[in-house]
Amino acid sequence: MDILVALDSLKGSISSKHANEVVKEGLLLADPDFRVHTVPIADGGEGTVEALVEGINGVYKQVEVTGPLGEKVQARYGILGDGKTAVIEIAEACGFPLVPKQKRNPLYTTSYGVGEMILDAAKNGCNEFIIGLGGSATNDAGIGMLQALGFQFYDEQGIEVGQGGQSLSKVAHINDRNVFQIVKEGSFLVACDVNNPLYGENGAAYVFGPQKGADVKIVKRLDTGLRHFAKIVLDQFHLNLQSIPGAGAAGGLGAAFAGFLQAKLVPGVELIFHQIRLEKTVSKMDLIITGEGKLDNQTNFGKAPAGIAKLAKRFGVPVVAIAGDVRKADQRLHEQGIDAYFSIIPGPMDLEKAMEPCTTKENLKRTGEQIGRIIRLLHGSRGQVL
Amino acid sequence: MDILVALDSLKGSISSKHANEVVKEGLLLADPDFRVHTVPIADGGEGTVEALVEGINGVYKQVEVTGPLGEKVQARYGILGDGKTAVIEIAEACGFPLVPKQKRNPLYTTSYGVGEMILDAAKNGCNEFIIGLGGSATNDAGIGMLQALGFQFYDEQGIEVGQGGQSLSKVAHINDRNVFQIVKEGSFLVACDVNNPLYGENGAAYVFGPQKGADVKIVKRLDTGLRHFAKIVLDQFHLNLQSIPGAGAAGGLGAAFAGFLQAKLVPGVELIFHQIRLEKTVSKMDLIITGEGKLDNQTNFGKAPAGIAKLAKRFGVPVVAIAGDVRKADQRLHEQGIDAYFSIIPGPMDLEKAMEPCTTKENLKRTGEQIGRIIRLLHGSRGQVL
Repeated sequence: MDILVALDSLKGSISSKHANEVVKEGLLLADPDFRVHTVPIADGGEGTVEALVEGINGVYKQVEVTGPLGEKVQARYGILGDGKTAVIEIAEACGFPLVPKQKRNPLYTTSYGVGEMILDAAKNGCNEFIIGLGGSATNDAGIGMLQALGFQFYDEQGIEVGQGGQSLSKVAHINDRNVFQIVKEGSFLVACDVNNPLYGENGAAYVFGPQKGADVKIVKRLDTGLRHFAKIVLDQFHLNLQSIPGAGAAGGLGAAFAGFLQAKLVPGVELIFHQIRLEKTVSKMDLIITGEGKLDNQTNFGKAPAGIAKLAKRFGVPVVAIAGDVRKADQRLHEQGIDAYFSIIPGPMDLEKAMEPCTTKENLKRTGEQIGRIIRLLHGSRGQVL
Repeated sequence: MDILVALDSLKGSISSKHANEVVKEGLLLADPDFRVHTVPIADGGEGTVEALVEGINGVYKQVEVTGPLGEKVQARYGILGDGKTAVIEIAEACGFPLVPKQKRNPLYTTSYGVGEMILDAAKNGCNEFIIGLGGSATNDAGIGMLQALGFQFYDEQGIEVGQGGQSLSKVAHINDRNVFQIVKEGSFLVACDVNNPLYGENGAAYVFGPQKGADVKIVKRLDTGLRHFAKIVLDQFHLNLQSIPGAGAAGGLGAAFAGFLQAKLVPGVELIFHQIRLEKTVSKMDLIITGEGKLDNQTNFGKAPAGIAKLAKRFGVPVVAIAGDVRKADQRLHEQGIDAYFSIIPGPMDLEKAMEPCTTKENLKRTGEQIGRIIRLLHGSRGQVL
């Protein structure tokens, strides 16, 4: 019996790869004759680099770049086995965890380091890029990143506007003649699970600004800046950033990627699954075990387990999901193709304890073993699923 | 597919009967074609009356008796469908919950009410008795119960010795000529899962005294009393209470039942399962779902799920266990015949929340449904198990 174990990371606890490993251990305890395959997966957010590097024989790179507050940070990215595809999570250069809570203010935070990561990857031979948006602490429409890549943003006096969301409203003219070669030669695929426009009530500032530390006044100022910036871009390049679905992702980095780097914005799960050729693997399996930290019905946010279930359904492969919390799971999950689900929590315990990596591993292994036992019991280890 | 649902009560939360009902609901959500049977079970402790009354078409009776501190308490017992078999849990008359923590002192607590329950059942036409020991707050060697049944215990001055463990050391002579008829005519089966002798380091006082509120000094005094009482009984009746395995159960009620009422002490699970003809039911099933509050490996204490698994193994019927806490479960459980087990806890939550009856019901139902789904998935609803 061929079983694919493909759990998303249990965020804040353990990675997809480690989760898969312990579930596999549990399954083999139940029956050493199971043929257990593992594939690290991700949904385009946290864990994307790891899933692709582990899944496609890549290597990790580290580079010092400008952090969201202008300080230096160590950012990790991946180069896949082909030697020319870089995988970058923007949060490494401008993510939430890099900004202490009291300093969160998107007027000042910059995406500059993302551009530096792209340049470093280019220097290392990459011309294809897979970008994970998500988790940004910025709202600068990506001008920080674009500045690092050689774009110049001038105000009315012909002075460069500087960094952060506050600079957007000053932009009067954009110079793209001094950009680095990679801007023209690079090919960018961006994992993006939101359709928000750049500005307006569904735009970057109003929807994501508050969680980045912006109060009502700042949100308004940011939105005005985004609107102004879009107008300048429209006037100068005849390019309508506002009309790009997902332009408002990651504080407008979506707009910068799509508008200035000709990036294709693709739902994260779809992008990752395509890259790791998951469809081909799934089609050969008798059973799939997937999972994540919290199992719920948020398919509109493109979660990995639901994505796997959808794929598995096409080939008639049964899917069992396991998770640290299944309280939000309901009938819709079954309709999406998760045939059954189980919690890995073995008894009353608090969240902190449950999320300790060693507890999570033990819980995943136990649950893997018990699912393995019930499969063997009802089915046998060598048989074919109905 | 015939599935038997037979969970023990989840102690402190919901009864065996209710647990079975919600698991059945969950299974039928997964597949309405499952033929789901339910049998309330117990291990001879709490829930014994309910399991037998519900399982063998009995009725509940209530009677006012003397509580462990001499106050009046309402005690419930059952009369089974045959109209002549009473089921009594001694804890109803002299159990822990009847004594506030600060008043727990086995020098003073009495088992008198147990005798009154027996008399009431006899008055209602019963001459067979199934007794659940366990949970007693007493250490009086059952002299309270025996006094209620007409036995008289005199001190050296010919004065009746009174109640509680303190009285044992005063006993000099026992008069059994005025006992009620039921003492001679009744047949007593006692569910007893301990082998402790009446006195000594493995006896009632030393092993169970401390949890009943006795300090070191009181334990010693109680043990001396038990030893003295056993000597009087030996001298007067040539009956060696100390040599009866289980004499030390329930503060010596084991000795009173076995020695003075010719009771047979039987492991609880064995007794209950025999009464409810569980073997016959189990033999006809394709799968059994059992469970309890905390699943562990305490087979030596004769827990119901392990008992069911043992029975099921004889007929090759697979057993899946579910529980509120599976952290103590390990490989030995599988060796005992529990083929697989799952926690019903859906995510991080505290014990209090987990034990709320409505939470427990929801958790059992969800787990029942998911197990049902995996069975249907791997097996189909009408097929035979391997």
